Amino acid sequence: MGGDHGPEVVIPGAAISLVRHPGLRFLAFGDEARIRRALEHHPEMAACVEIVHTDLTVSMDDKPSQAVRRGKGSSMWLALEAVREGRAQVAVSAGNTGALMAMSKLVLRPMAAIERPAIAAIWPTVRSECIVLDVGANIGASSRQLCDFALMGAAMSRALFHVEKPSVGLLNVGVEEIKGDEMVKQAHAWLKTSEGLPLSYQGFVEGDQIGQGVVDVVVVEGFAGNIALKTAEGTARQIGQYLRAAMTRSLMSKVGAYLARGGFHILRQKMDPRRANGGTFLGLNGIAIKSHGGTDSLGFASAVDLGYDMAESSLLNRLAADLDAFHGTLSKLGALQPE
Amino acid sequence: MGGDHGPEVVIPGAAISLVRHPGLRFLAFGDEARIRRALEHHPEMAACVEIVHTDLTVSMDDKPSQAVRRGKGSSMWLALEAVREGRAQVAVSAGNTGALMAMSKLVLRPMAAIERPAIAAIWPTVRSECIVLDVGANIGASSRQLCDFALMGAAMSRALFHVEKPSVGLLNVGVEEIKGDEMVKQAHAWLKTSEGLPLSYQGFVEGDQIGQGVVDVVVVEGFAGNIALKTAEGTARQIGQYLRAAMTRSLMSKVGAYLARGGFHILRQKMDPRRANGGTFLGLNGIAIKSHGGTDSLGFASAVDLGYDMAESSLLNRLAADLDAFHGTLSKLGALQPE
Repeated sequence: MGGDHGPEVVIPGAAISLVRHPGLRFLAFGDEARIRRALEHHPEMAACVEIVHTDLTVSMDDKPSQAVRRGKGSSMWLALEAVREGRAQVAVSAGNTGALMAMSKLVLRPMAAIERPAIAAIWPTVRSECIVLDVGANIGASSRQLCDFALMGAAMSRALFHVEKPSVGLLNVGVEEIKGDEMVKQAHAWLKTSEGLPLSYQGFVEGDQIGQGVVDVVVVEGFAGNIALKTAEGTARQIGQYLRAAMTRSLMSKVGAYLARGGFHILRQKMDPRRANGGTFLGLNGIAIKSHGGTDSLGFASAVDLGYDMAESSLLNRLAADLDAFHGTLSKLGALQPE
Repeated sequence: MGGDHGPEVVIPGAAISLVRHPGLRFLAFGDEARIRRALEHHPEMAACVEIVHTDLTVSMDDKPSQAVRRGKGSSMWLALEAVREGRAQVAVSAGNTGALMAMSKLVLRPMAAIERPAIAAIWPTVRSECIVLDVGANIGASSRQLCDFALMGAAMSRALFHVEKPSVGLLNVGVEEIKGDEMVKQAHAWLKTSEGLPLSYQGFVEGDQIGQGVVDVVVVEGFAGNIALKTAEGTARQIGQYLRAAMTRSLMSKVGAYLARGGFHILRQKMDPRRANGGTFLGLNGIAIKSHGGTDSLGFASAVDLGYDMAESSLLNRLAADLDAFHGTLSKLGALQPE
């Protein structure tokens, strides 16, 4: 029921993903009549969808605290509960981000070793894609939490891109004098010295290196991470506006742009935010994916695809083991005193 | 002597700026012989430049602490000293950022009411340009410091863009649950309630709104601000790479791109990082401008132009009065206890 459109985007989106992954099966939570109407246009989905009716929904304007208090039994809640109970492997929602995050924490619970879950974004680069986390689950992060993010991001990278030892960088600022705050410096020291990590630590990266694809995983606390993500999206939109204005300013430009339309088509595909739609909540006992609320069916399909890839890998089991081993190392370093 | 090129870029850059502002006069600090050679190609500069020789320079690799310890008498130091002593109104350097920042603080000293200076960047938007600060002078900022940044940014906006009451936004994250850390929330409360401010406070803005030009001044602490700036630069470069690849992938695209070259020329100008070159150190008793180290003469000219505009306005006097008034208001609110 979530997002700006509800079942009218969610069902067609799931249908697109079903073509790509015929093994998919769906539980659809929400207004049964409305879901049935949406399914009428997708007869191929009939055998793959089970509808679980509920009248209760979380609205896009609900405060997370309200949603958690009053949202028990809502479509969002029931979807997460299905993951907790093993009836589903992934929950995908286009609904209220804050509510989904708060409910996910409550229903799925953080993994034993994890102090704080994080939201991971898939970030397009000139090479392929990288994973950036945290992009907004929390503000600030301790050194230990930053290290956990590194392991969580590496696990996700392994699941999605099949790299055994993903390269990881800590996002930092470049001015010599201040080179990062104490949390970032300490996390750097730990990641550099810890042996046997299931990742290849590359040190600090700066904001302009993310899009160059210098590492598979970029780790940052959630305030700066969210700002970086939004700023990149905004800059892409801004340049798109410049480009349209430049290509329509004279007849000659218009003719040229028409002839080059194949190239512009490729460019549009490259820059299409629907291709990398889906923020993943990492560090919980189950997978929850947040699709952009305003996306269309193609965008929602990307979020479902992402969930499929993550469920297919045994990401969470592997991650639990990795975290255990790493925290063992830190304990030996005497580093696990509460910060 | 600073930057990747030294006088061979600085002198031609100053010459470009002299054409735009014939009233400019320069003090050039550094290796006299090398400066004289660079001046040979610019006879029009002869009457406008006074050379002050020194053998000592700060290198791009010097740590700021080293530079401050050993840099007394260097070209960078002497330029800042000239500002302190009123022989120059602005110091412009393409040298080591950290060193310039540390030396500026030491030589020019923070203004009486200012706890922390900031670096302000000029950020191109779809409307025109806005000012973003702090982009990396410090990590973290208290609520009071964020408010001071708002006043400093407004003063700069007034000087450069001649808006009497510049609109100001606080950069924040959009997830309801966490809506900013305590420092940002408190700064928001103060800016919202303080009357008679020489700015029009607009509340929170998110990363994707900076480039849309929704406000004249964007305020953020230096870690996230630096990451936002670098991420925007990186995204612009990334899209430029996509665009080049897309326009050269087929003969038809190449022909189209050739016909549309007028449009691409406009686009290149829009995206040219040399147009908005120059980070300004705000909050000191004097103006210091940092040009990108790798820029060419056109880029250096932008930094000189920026210095000219700032010196021409009576920015610093006005700012001192604004800060005084605002701190008076905060005192009445009982808000100036040390944080």
